[in-house]
Amino acid sequence: MKAVVMRDQSLLVEQVEDPVPGPGEVLVKTLACGICGSDLHMFKHCDHALSSFKRAGLPFGFDPTQGVVFGHEYCAEILDHGPGTEKTLKTGTRVCSMPLVINPPVLENIGYSNAYPGGYGERMILQEAMLMPVPGDLPSNIAALTEPMAVAVHAVARARLQGDEVPVVIGCGPIGLAVILALKARGIGPVIASDFSAGRRALAEKMGADIVLNPGDESPYDSWQEVAGPQGYDMRSPLALLGLGPEPRPCVVFECVGLPGMVQQCLASAPARSRVVVVGVCMESDTIEPMMAICKEMDVHFVFAYSAEEFGQTLIDLADGKLDAAPLITSVVRPEGVAQAFETLAQPDDQAKILINFD
Amino acid sequence: MKAVVMRDQSLLVEQVEDPVPGPGEVLVKTLACGICGSDLHMFKHCDHALSSFKRAGLPFGFDPTQGVVFGHEYCAEILDHGPGTEKTLKTGTRVCSMPLVINPPVLENIGYSNAYPGGYGERMILQEAMLMPVPGDLPSNIAALTEPMAVAVHAVARARLQGDEVPVVIGCGPIGLAVILALKARGIGPVIASDFSAGRRALAEKMGADIVLNPGDESPYDSWQEVAGPQGYDMRSPLALLGLGPEPRPCVVFECVGLPGMVQQCLASAPARSRVVVVGVCMESDTIEPMMAICKEMDVHFVFAYSAEEFGQTLIDLADGKLDAAPLITSVVRPEGVAQAFETLAQPDDQAKILINFD
Repeated sequence: MKAVVMRDQSLLVEQVEDPVPGPGEVLVKTLACGICGSDLHMFKHCDHALSSFKRAGLPFGFDPTQGVVFGHEYCAEILDHGPGTEKTLKTGTRVCSMPLVINPPVLENIGYSNAYPGGYGERMILQEAMLMPVPGDLPSNIAALTEPMAVAVHAVARARLQGDEVPVVIGCGPIGLAVILALKARGIGPVIASDFSAGRRALAEKMGADIVLNPGDESPYDSWQEVAGPQGYDMRSPLALLGLGPEPRPCVVFECVGLPGMVQQCLASAPARSRVVVVGVCMESDTIEPMMAICKEMDVHFVFAYSAEEFGQTLIDLADGKLDAAPLITSVVRPEGVAQAFETLAQPDDQAKILINFD
Repeated sequence: MKAVVMRDQSLLVEQVEDPVPGPGEVLVKTLACGICGSDLHMFKHCDHALSSFKRAGLPFGFDPTQGVVFGHEYCAEILDHGPGTEKTLKTGTRVCSMPLVINPPVLENIGYSNAYPGGYGERMILQEAMLMPVPGDLPSNIAALTEPMAVAVHAVARARLQGDEVPVVIGCGPIGLAVILALKARGIGPVIASDFSAGRRALAEKMGADIVLNPGDESPYDSWQEVAGPQGYDMRSPLALLGLGPEPRPCVVFECVGLPGMVQQCLASAPARSRVVVVGVCMESDTIEPMMAICKEMDVHFVFAYSAEEFGQTLIDLADGKLDAAPLITSVVRPEGVAQAFETLAQPDDQAKILINFD
């Protein structure tokens, strides 16, 4: 099959052997696959990330010298059933799945595995028990957004919002945009969104953000103060900092950039007693000033992935229009365009989600 | 008056002018004052801490070249009332207070202020509105523990424990010991406590910790697993790391050391989906690996100080025996012994709370 192979800091289109489904697995044809920010980070900081996984005893990892086929945001079509499968979903059925193969105690991550190539290749092996059929005529490109949308839905769920919070979304790349959409779908707002790119700010508005700004010109927390603070409230006054004055509507920051320094920037700039939900995945070491976070009594929630229920519900919500994620897709490329897409996405620009199609 | 003055990285006993109470203030005689870990950190990392306050716009700070009298954990006796006071509490009354002088928008921190010397001096100025009388015959040395005990009571309250959590207390200095006491007073447990010092481990047992260990010999999280995990549970298995297996009793880590690297050590070593309550005040920059925290879905709660209600209730609980904090006090020194006490406390040893007495 044709696949984009990551090896030694390069991304090359190669012919590799078709994977073969084992017991309980199916062979699928990739219909659409998203390029994820984590793929970009993993491409750039592979060694640090892998050593970090290892030190934490986390069940992620692969041998980068062997070549890896990325791609964990996919929609695919069943081509063949392996041995010992139930075949409830017939050949030709379009499916999504969480990018996991679970055979306790072994766990493999599709797209970050030497054994299970991801959707950057024409064929994948998925676990039958994980398959979810794509409802009705939902386009495959939209169905492929289930995974990143589920990340955002989970991040919002983990933030355990009560309804009166004013969320501030830092960074309007695909995950920031998906978080805006997930917040609006829950009726939370006003949503303040911040990005240096004009194109991404326009997308944030399309996603329903109520206040969209360029952090080069103004602080998102000044916007928060205007919306959330009682009359005359000054978030920088000593009493507000110590929580002794009138109580504003809580600030919940969604950090969706994932670069070093961003968590500390949130801790330093957000109002005291904010909650910072870290959705962007920083794969490098990072520096914080605990003193600042302590004196401001900040909470930091690191969030990861989603539950099976959240994943399935997201696919349904995409199909029935509760989540209109179509504007997230700004480009569709062939495998030959992936290396260039990685370069484009490496800097804030007008692109959000770039999908790979094979036909 | 006699006072221990911090100036240019030295602590010297000097004669300084008696402070004079302004409107709404009282002059008090210091009866007892605790040496706080934050005093030690501030002594060592004054410049970094002050610049960190400044960058965060926090209302703390002083001019270290002018000389500062530390001491924010005190019990004192009213000597005189300044102008415009209500004199509800008479001369001779023993009092405690939160170490704050609040005149909006100005806020001064007693003991970290050029204008308001703390309890390392024989006399202080307190705000009348902040005074709380010491109940009955509670010894002044115990009453001086109200402030650090209130920090622990607040940290436990901020952790919003539901009752089934298994707390792991890292570091059994005064704050770690106070956290153990506050947890036990709430009926939370078993409490696992960890410290390199045999003396402090003995104190942890005295405070009611159920499992006390030396982290040089064993991991506190192995103890957590034994107590909290379902039969056969392995916190390092892929399924446990991803939260896909049986659910253990939650782990809530109280980081009570406050040195660089401790937060990351908790993130790396504690089980996935733990909550880390950061009580120890690290005044230096610190490094974390966000990736690890993300994949393990950790929560970090930075906690600071207490509410007026928590402070008042802690004083009452000390008086009526609900909190038996007496074992916290391991030494009492005169002003001349403070510099030596700072050196003793700078390394983990058998000491916990050292109090200053003047008579």
